[in-house]
Order: sequence, then structure tokens, then C-alpha cells
Amino acid sequence: MILGRVIGTVWSTKKDEALVGAKFLIVRQLDLEYKPKEATVIAVDSVGAGVGEVVLVAQGSSARQTTFTKNKPVDAVIMAIVDKLDISVKD
Amino acid sequence: MILGRVIGTVWSTKKDEALVGAKFLIVRQLDLEYKPKEATVIAVDSVGAGVGEVVLVAQGSSARQTTFTKNKPVDAVIMAIVDKLDISVKD
Amino acid sequence: MILGRVIGTVWSTKKDEALVGAKFLIVRQLDLEYKPKEATVIAVDSVGAGVGEVVLVAQGSSARQTTFTKNKPVDAVIMAIVDKLDISVKD
Amino acid sequence: MILGRVIGTVWSTKKDEALVGAKFLIVRQLDLEYKPKEATVIAVDSVGAGVGEVVLVAQGSSARQTTFTKNKPVDAVIMAIVDKLDISVKD
Amino acid sequence: MILGRVIGTVWSTKKDEALVGAKFLIVRQLDLEYKPKEATVIAVDSVGAGVGEVVLVAQGSSARQTTFTKNKPVDAVIMAIVDKLDISVKD
Repeated sequence: MILGRVIGTVWSTKKDEALVGAKFLIVRQLDLEYKPKEATVIAVDSVGAGVGEVVLVAQGSSARQTTFTKNKPVDAVIMAIVDKLDISVKD
Repeated sequence: MILGRVIGTVWSTKKDEALVGAKFLIVRQLDLEYKPKEATVIAVDSVGAGVGEVVLVAQGSSARQTTFTKNKPVDAVIMAIVDKLDISVKD
Repeated sequence: MILGRVIGTVWSTKKDEALVGAKFLIVRQLDLEYKPKEATVIAVDSVGAGVGEVVLVAQGSSARQTTFTKNKPVDAVIMAIVDKLDISVKD
Repeated sequence: MILGRVIGTVWSTKKDEALVGAKFLIVRQLDLEYKPKEATVIAVDSVGAGVGEVVLVAQGSSARQTTFTKNKPVDAVIMAIVDKLDISVKD
Repeated sequence: MILGRVIGTVWSTKKDEALVGAKFLIVRQLDLEYKPKEATVIAVDSVGAGVGEVVLVAQGSSARQTTFTKNKPVDAVIMAIVDKLDISVKD
């Protein structure tokens, strides 16, 4: 999974019929010191994540393994809100 | 999913029999200020997206989770047309 | 999908039993002006593509959605031969 | 699969219901001389790996092929703890 | 698929129960002149490939489409040993 921060929302009225009610959140990828990286991903939220929250995103077919995203054209899902990182091994 | 703009079409007569009727659109990836990025992807359209429109593209096996692309050799599908982006957290 | 040109063939006698009869073609990725990019991919042909032809390649599990590649250890398939690109939006 | 070292843990109380009990470990990718690379991945542990251990990580849908991760929104799993690397061909 | 050379082996006693008997080979990716590239991947062997041999590797869920890797947490498999490359189109 990747670590990221929710930074915004994508609004879309015209979308695949299976995606009615889906919330598309913009997630900026973070490094392990919570600093923003270049990459962003648009993910469907499945745990009630809000803007500013640090989250984990699962991608690919694993993104369809939640009740809401099952069998839907979704390749990224927010599946956890992060409380804390414990980094024990410094590089 | 990725954010992109439809910039053109790929025409192909000789293709897998399952793809007869498929519209292959060329999508240029965009950053969050709608500026074009280097990467492009060829995606099948499933929501009636037109050239110039800003869209979301789902990739991998998730691209086969629409009525038209089910069980077809397609790894990218346009599954939403974007109305607006709300970016609340500035990096 | 990605845009590419068939530039050669990989010959292999010792391969997974499911791949007997598979043609492994070397595809050089192209940009939208048909100029060669760095990346190449080895793909199984499913539409009779020949060397020099411009093609579309589907990757991942979508590569197994053709009659020949079904249930086979193949992660890239040529699924269309390109006639023409129409680029309407200049970056 | 990729080679990596477990360097820490991600703590998350609010997560997909299927992930209750999942241990999210932070894995820093390693080169073949065990030197840390830039990339990190968050993976679920399925073999009892501890911080500091060198491991193999499988990604994508393959990450769901263990007893614990089956049908769960997980795209990376630690599936082996590495004893030793034998590099016979020097580049 | 990707082109690579087997350069070594990863030894692992503590691994997912489904992987007992799996041989993890280290594959260095090659360019079309057989020169080593930066990237390496750890793959399970399914065709009896030996160190030094040039091989094709399939990744993702396609890596699970061989008798040995079926339903196992494996995302890369060696599925062919390369005899020869024919490059007909010079870039």
C-alpha cells in the first residue's frame, strides 16, 4: 500500500452507473516524514477519510475488495486512516 | 485512478474480435492544475467522453468492470468525466 | 493500453507447457509522433501483427482475455493493429 | 517479488472492517548488496516478520493469496523472510 | 513480459506455507543487446532455468498461471528460456 494525505475531491456527475455515490478523493503521496511527494492518485474512500487526513491506499484489483468498490471500475481505495508511524530502523 | 484529458483517437480495423465497436481514446495525463504531463494512456471510453474533456481513467483489471469492457483485453477505461477539482490542502 | 511498434521476435523452445505455439514479439513503445521511446515490452500476438506494424498492447490480467492467452502466464498481448492516430488537442 | 527490509510499523484504528488484526509493516526496498533504495511499500505481514528483517514482498492481486489477506483490500504482502542471497553472475 | 538474466538465488526457510519448494531466482533485467539494466526482480522458476540463462518473466496475476504458482503469493514467474532474439527494426 502507499502512504498519502487527502488533499481534495474530484466532482463528477457523468460517470459509470456503478459509481453513483462514489466519493473520489485526491491523495498526495507522502514520504515517511509526512513530506509531500510528486505523485498523486485519485482514490475512492471506504473508511470515511476527510481532507487533511493521512491514509493508506490499496491499488489494482485489491481496490475492489471492499463492500462499496466490489466489481466496480475502481483501481485505488482508501482502506485505512493512519494514527501513527513507528520507524525503528533509520537508513 | 488518474486524471487526464482526452486529446485524440486511435483508429484500428484489425483488432481482437471482442473489441469490435470499442472506441480507443488517447488520454494525456494532467497534474492538479490541469497542466499536461509527459505520460499518455490509450483507454476505452465507457461514459461518452469527447475530445478535450477532463476524465478519470481506471487501469488494470478494474478497467474490465464496466458493461462494455467485461472480459475484454482492455487495461484502461474512462469511467468518469470530471466536473471540478476541489483542492483544499496546498502542498 | 500502450502504443508501440513490433521490432522483432523472441525465440524460445523451453517454455511453460501452456505457451507452446505462442509468438513472443518485441514491441518498442512509441510516442504520439511514432518516435521510439526507451521502454520495450515482450507481448504475445493475438491479431496477426507483423514486424514494423504499429500496435496497441494491453498488459496485466487483461492480457489473458483473448482466446489464445486465456489462463496462460502472459502479461502483455497485442490486441489491435493501429491504422491511424487522430490528435485533436495539441499540448 | 521485491527485496526489502522491515523498518517500522503503521498504526491504524480506523480501517476497512476486513483489516481488523492486520499488521501494516513499512518495508524499505533494498538493492542486492542490502543497501536501502528510495522506494518503500506498506505491506501486511503473513510470516511473522520483525523489524530489521530482510524479506520478500509480493504485490498486486498476488498479495491476496495468503490465508490472512484473502479477499482483503491489500496490495502488498510479506511472504518470505530471507536467509541469504547467492549472486553468481556479477554484472 | 520482460527480458532478463538469472544472476542468483534467494534462500528462505521461513515463508508462506504455500511456497515450500519454491525456487526464488534473482533476475537482472536486460536490454535488447543483453546488457544489464538497473532493475532486478525476484521470480519463481517454472521452467528449470539456471543461473546465467536469459529468460522471460511474466508479472502480476499472470505469474500465478502455472501449475506450481497457482493460487500462491507470487507476482513474478520465469515462463520461458530464451534461445535467440531477432531484432528486425533498428530504432
